[in-house]
Amino acid sequence: MFGAIEAGGTKFVCGVGSGPNDLKTCEIQTTSPECTAAAAVKFLHENSAWKLKAVGIGSFGPVDLRVDSPTYGFITSTPKTAWRNFDFAGTVRKALNLPVGFDTDVNAAALGEARWGAAQGISDLLYLTIGTGIGGGAIVGGRILHGLIHPEMGHIRVPHDLNRDPYRGCCPFHGDCLEGLASGPAIEQRWGVPGFNLPIVHPGWELEAHYLALGLANWVCTLSPRRILLGGGVMQQARLFPMVRSELTHLLNGYVRAREVMEDLDYYLIPPGLGTRSGILGAIALAEQAYQ
Amino acid sequence: MFGAIEAGGTKFVCGVGSGPNDLKTCEIQTTSPECTAAAAVKFLHENSAWKLKAVGIGSFGPVDLRVDSPTYGFITSTPKTAWRNFDFAGTVRKALNLPVGFDTDVNAAALGEARWGAAQGISDLLYLTIGTGIGGGAIVGGRILHGLIHPEMGHIRVPHDLNRDPYRGCCPFHGDCLEGLASGPAIEQRWGVPGFNLPIVHPGWELEAHYLALGLANWVCTLSPRRILLGGGVMQQARLFPMVRSELTHLLNGYVRAREVMEDLDYYLIPPGLGTRSGILGAIALAEQAYQ
Repeated sequence: MFGAIEAGGTKFVCGVGSGPNDLKTCEIQTTSPECTAAAAVKFLHENSAWKLKAVGIGSFGPVDLRVDSPTYGFITSTPKTAWRNFDFAGTVRKALNLPVGFDTDVNAAALGEARWGAAQGISDLLYLTIGTGIGGGAIVGGRILHGLIHPEMGHIRVPHDLNRDPYRGCCPFHGDCLEGLASGPAIEQRWGVPGFNLPIVHPGWELEAHYLALGLANWVCTLSPRRILLGGGVMQQARLFPMVRSELTHLLNGYVRAREVMEDLDYYLIPPGLGTRSGILGAIALAEQAYQ
Repeated sequence: MFGAIEAGGTKFVCGVGSGPNDLKTCEIQTTSPECTAAAAVKFLHENSAWKLKAVGIGSFGPVDLRVDSPTYGFITSTPKTAWRNFDFAGTVRKALNLPVGFDTDVNAAALGEARWGAAQGISDLLYLTIGTGIGGGAIVGGRILHGLIHPEMGHIRVPHDLNRDPYRGCCPFHGDCLEGLASGPAIEQRWGVPGFNLPIVHPGWELEAHYLALGLANWVCTLSPRRILLGGGVMQQARLFPMVRSELTHLLNGYVRAREVMEDLDYYLIPPGLGTRSGILGAIALAEQAYQ
């Protein structure tokens, strides 16, 4: 039995269990790091009868994932000042005296999907969440891609035709990076209504599909994933999927000569299989890895 | 002792040896696949006294790198029609009865740099060549990134301000993808002279640095490499390096909070350490891996 924490900026999801068919969860509002972490630890304690083998944490960020760093497992330069430099993994490890697996929320979700979701057995996977921000987690050769820090995929630059879309973008760092153009807040600012109130037939969806496809084309050319999962609030507009696939085909223009991309895009670019549980189940999978 | 073939569209470099201080090479003009492969095999034979343990091939592409594919080790849909569907790895394996390591030219070069060059001991590396085309090879967690096919990094889309740069790009597939805007032929078509004849002080270099930095920003956000090596003919204009670093800093705007990127860009974004021998030495490293 493993413990899991999916740590978000507004709420924590905590879980104990061993997989999709054995998972008990609760939600905790995100307040101070001390109170929220203590409440999470309390839940794990009380619902595991002391049988936990390890804990996995998928956290909002930025986080320090360098295992050789003195601040490994810390939340680092977040705008949430109370959480800045909080030793998240260390606090949980000390409180429970258990191995702790620690990664970003989106990397955890990618791992969860590879373990139990829509990418089982896929060694090279890209998981994206399109919501308040745009985040990406990649699995390369069966392992989560880390590198220098963690990827910040939402912040790639893509073409922006100001004649078609005069909106300047909402990213405080980059203006019209992909996140600045295609995240949920960008949709809301551009059209004056949030995505879930935007009519099904509206040019905003064409534009959204265009930007997402530009990002996807770049990631296909860079990471060459074997499958791509698109989740997050914006993707709840299911009409986006065929539009993004069509636009991606147009952009790649036959260059990536793999059957999966040329013919089987309906199976290549799909929603996550675990619904809203990718992250918390990914945290269970992180705990599994920490235990092993 | 290992054999190595760096297979390019106009010439092959063949080598026998064990590393940078023990490498005998020759060049062969690329003609038909049968003749060129036979000449390469002959060189390996005659210069190894039958002592080769394995052969590594870094090849122009596109190539099939899926080990479970019936056409693994083939050159696939190249515009060089004679080479299309040529069983490159198989031909060499059968001729020499040795294990053969096979990868793209640019992946081989990345591996060579990680083994003996400017990225020794770096587990997460991006190697780029900016020349006739733009190619990228990534090492992630110590292993060459493959995925569905191999990356086609040169073909990512980046912002293109037609007011600043009305040139439409030269990529036959995508027009103004990065390769279409920033490869050697793009420089030559845009300015009417090849890069090596473009004056040191010329707006073309500012523009080139801008495009390369856009690509690099996207790769930093996606792959989070621990070091980036920029090689190829265009980068022989050494003035480009400080310009690209400055532009990359401007584009990332403090978002990637790692010392390497924030402060030490002079050591993060550098030329290859093996000069023109990255590829052939990478092929030796591929042979090493095939032997192990």
